[in-house]
Amino acid sequence: MAPVETVMKFKEYILSNPDAAALAGRHLLKMNDLSKEEILAVLDFAEKMKTGAISRAEQLEVLPGCTLAEIFEKPSLRTRVSFETGIYQLGGQGLYITSGEIQIGVRESVYDISNVLTRMVDIAMARVFKHSTVADLAKYAKKPVINGLCDTEHPCQALADILTLKEERGEVKGLRFAYIGDGNNVCQSLMVICAKLGIGFVCACPKGYYPAEDYLALASRLADENGTYFELTESPAAAAAGADVVYTDTWTSMGQEEEAKQRQEAFAGYRVDDALMAKAGSRCIFMHCLPAHRGFEVTDSVMDSPQSRIFEEAENRLHAQKAVMGLLGRK
Amino acid sequence: MAPVETVMKFKEYILSNPDAAALAGRHLLKMNDLSKEEILAVLDFAEKMKTGAISRAEQLEVLPGCTLAEIFEKPSLRTRVSFETGIYQLGGQGLYITSGEIQIGVRESVYDISNVLTRMVDIAMARVFKHSTVADLAKYAKKPVINGLCDTEHPCQALADILTLKEERGEVKGLRFAYIGDGNNVCQSLMVICAKLGIGFVCACPKGYYPAEDYLALASRLADENGTYFELTESPAAAAAGADVVYTDTWTSMGQEEEAKQRQEAFAGYRVDDALMAKAGSRCIFMHCLPAHRGFEVTDSVMDSPQSRIFEEAENRLHAQKAVMGLLGRK
Amino acid sequence: MAPVETVMKFKEYILSNPDAAALAGRHLLKMNDLSKEEILAVLDFAEKMKTGAISRAEQLEVLPGCTLAEIFEKPSLRTRVSFETGIYQLGGQGLYITSGEIQIGVRESVYDISNVLTRMVDIAMARVFKHSTVADLAKYAKKPVINGLCDTEHPCQALADILTLKEERGEVKGLRFAYIGDGNNVCQSLMVICAKLGIGFVCACPKGYYPAEDYLALASRLADENGTYFELTESPAAAAAGADVVYTDTWTSMGQEEEAKQRQEAFAGYRVDDALMAKAGSRCIFMHCLPAHRGFEVTDSVMDSPQSRIFEEAENRLHAQKAVMGLLGRK
Repeated sequence: MAPVETVMKFKEYILSNPDAAALAGRHLLKMNDLSKEEILAVLDFAEKMKTGAISRAEQLEVLPGCTLAEIFEKPSLRTRVSFETGIYQLGGQGLYITSGEIQIGVRESVYDISNVLTRMVDIAMARVFKHSTVADLAKYAKKPVINGLCDTEHPCQALADILTLKEERGEVKGLRFAYIGDGNNVCQSLMVICAKLGIGFVCACPKGYYPAEDYLALASRLADENGTYFELTESPAAAAAGADVVYTDTWTSMGQEEEAKQRQEAFAGYRVDDALMAKAGSRCIFMHCLPAHRGFEVTDSVMDSPQSRIFEEAENRLHAQKAVMGLLGRK
Repeated sequence: MAPVETVMKFKEYILSNPDAAALAGRHLLKMNDLSKEEILAVLDFAEKMKTGAISRAEQLEVLPGCTLAEIFEKPSLRTRVSFETGIYQLGGQGLYITSGEIQIGVRESVYDISNVLTRMVDIAMARVFKHSTVADLAKYAKKPVINGLCDTEHPCQALADILTLKEERGEVKGLRFAYIGDGNNVCQSLMVICAKLGIGFVCACPKGYYPAEDYLALASRLADENGTYFELTESPAAAAAGADVVYTDTWTSMGQEEEAKQRQEAFAGYRVDDALMAKAGSRCIFMHCLPAHRGFEVTDSVMDSPQSRIFEEAENRLHAQKAVMGLLGRK
Repeated sequence: MAPVETVMKFKEYILSNPDAAALAGRHLLKMNDLSKEEILAVLDFAEKMKTGAISRAEQLEVLPGCTLAEIFEKPSLRTRVSFETGIYQLGGQGLYITSGEIQIGVRESVYDISNVLTRMVDIAMARVFKHSTVADLAKYAKKPVINGLCDTEHPCQALADILTLKEERGEVKGLRFAYIGDGNNVCQSLMVICAKLGIGFVCACPKGYYPAEDYLALASRLADENGTYFELTESPAAAAAGADVVYTDTWTSMGQEEEAKQRQEAFAGYRVDDALMAKAGSRCIFMHCLPAHRGFEVTDSVMDSPQSRIFEEAENRLHAQKAVMGLLGRK
């Protein structure tokens, strides 16, 4: 293929990348919906847009005139701003819908809602409490549906995280990813994406806060298939040793406020601080999907250290989700 | 007129259709604001856009750069998504305003609100509790105002419904429309539009749930003038006999939750089921403006039957409202 | 400079006006952030857009593809509609964010919020309770931040007000501005802008409702520097005598409802009525930033008199804010 001398057009890009092309019309409900090749295609398209290899002007031709329904069962600043800014940069508009307007399955069946909504809009994202809600929406939808966060997964966050790591290191295969803390939705999506891309994953969680059994099994199997490892430990120090990434998330997600005290006790030894970072390699970066409870799961000194990539990571939500929307929503 | 060989431009369309042209700058507060010819012009323009006779690209020239104020005293998913997607497809933007931001007549006089708002935006729609609110907004507005639903009418729904019927049957004059259930706002707009277009209308309601006296009188007069009939009965079976459309709506609209039990008793014999549909002709279609309470006013089997046009109807809100906005908002 | 024969392009305008050009990338947190020359540049740019000297089509090139984050700690119809319509007319989109989605400093540090948000959007406005909130946002922001109203200032309102006066009288230097009522945020921004532009300012407030000490000192100093006067009195009649503008605002702003009765007593003699207007010159105009409590701080007869410019003023929020966004947000 001839070198890219000038700015690439979106249509040319699609013709040049069959894995990207194959995503048109698909849903993204969980990380495992995408093959390794498709994940790499999403990351590549995201980078092309972020760096301007596909220019901002050209990006307006990705989803021109398209409407994205943004369904939020609970509000989220980061998710909303990144999706709404993103669809606009692709030539479309976002339509922000909250629980005041939509109560999936309460006032109206999910079948009726999904049919009606996706006949009018071109693509939908949903941030829901239960995975089954976004899965049901997709089941009856006439258009692509993206999981913007649910109780079991956060695939867009995981894509943004690996995009950040890729920018840092170029090749991600063979790196070591240490996840410290709660084996939650973010952790589960990361386990899957790392296993698929050949990244070693060590999850340090206290008992009672492990990832779900099916995700443990899935990550182990995928790691085997892709020549890497997935490990579960109760020792943050063991996980961090030699890591290329140390990652954590809040101990108490929204809706878990009642358990806050109990959780703080359980996670007491899992704070990411300078001592823990010192156990990792000097090239190791720190990541956090935010919002952070500074002083709890991570210290200020780590959050604000030169190793921290928290804001690059947040910005990469925008780029990763633009890539997801553009490839899934393409007509 | 020469056949449409290529895509038609909006300006050419307006020049070719004086009834459409006459709507510029007008309000749509109730169905009777539009003459028979103007209703047909709205439906024709909607069809031209839906079918692509006026292309999506050309539609962007209908209201370029215009802002639609979308005022919702109570939230509504369908109404909002259809208006906001619609104005965007016409080249403008929607500005969604809820009761958290606007309290008409409470914190500020409707005179001040209407003057201020309509100096900044180009067109407004309002979904209000009382008809007088949208009428007052229009009275002082510098720009066109559209009734997006009030206690007495739902003209945009009625236009979408007749668009659906027109797609089904081509010519609507002489058809028989059976409305079963609550003689509410939707029923009242339908009574008027059917009478104007020469569609026979039979309204089957239990005592106490009839349409308002003034609407009964209006529908009878208009039916006479247009060579058709308007009838009121308490027998769903009599209404459905020979009907081309069987239509129903929820028994308990938002805000009537306290009356729910009483209403369920009153409407017990008014459920639309397979037996009732069998009394109509085999070409008869079923319509419902949604949201539906499946198992109450209509059974699942009717909702999901081949005769059901509920999702076409919902999608037609988009097309009908685009036509209304485009013709009223034209400068 | 050659006369403007045809419509001016935005880029040409910037080249022709160094004061306008100097605003790129700046924040607007308080009126005193802008020099006299910069204020005049904002007003000039606003007029050029309002009159069409820079056409609506050309205005789309001011902030093409830019996203404005609109952060509202409390809702405001006028502020939101003017900013959201305005950014759209400049070629961008508004992203409306309410306290349901953002709680600055509560769930997440202002440092983290500001960093994340302003990496994704291009410009931000915030309507906050406390000035320190918008100041903190700006401190950490990567992009320009505009104060859309806080407890101490309302600079965009003051710009719109002086734009209205400028349209009325051409030259504003040497005019007399009478502010009657509560020495609040609006008053404080007006005191500063008038002093800078050489407009005499008389503030008639009851004891206990004076502007803050630092604003009194600032206005006096700026008035001296610019060859005009700033006076504080308890006599509305003395203030209105010979005034070119009589201005008032509500006695009870949002959040002060508990003090309403006490405030009504304190402000009893400060109602703007026909008698007070008669003390001013016949060319005197009446202004109010709205919403008005008709019958309290101002009578219907004054609000609706030929001297009233309340709706011009409200519309000028749109034009003034477009100028602010365009010049600050320019890249």
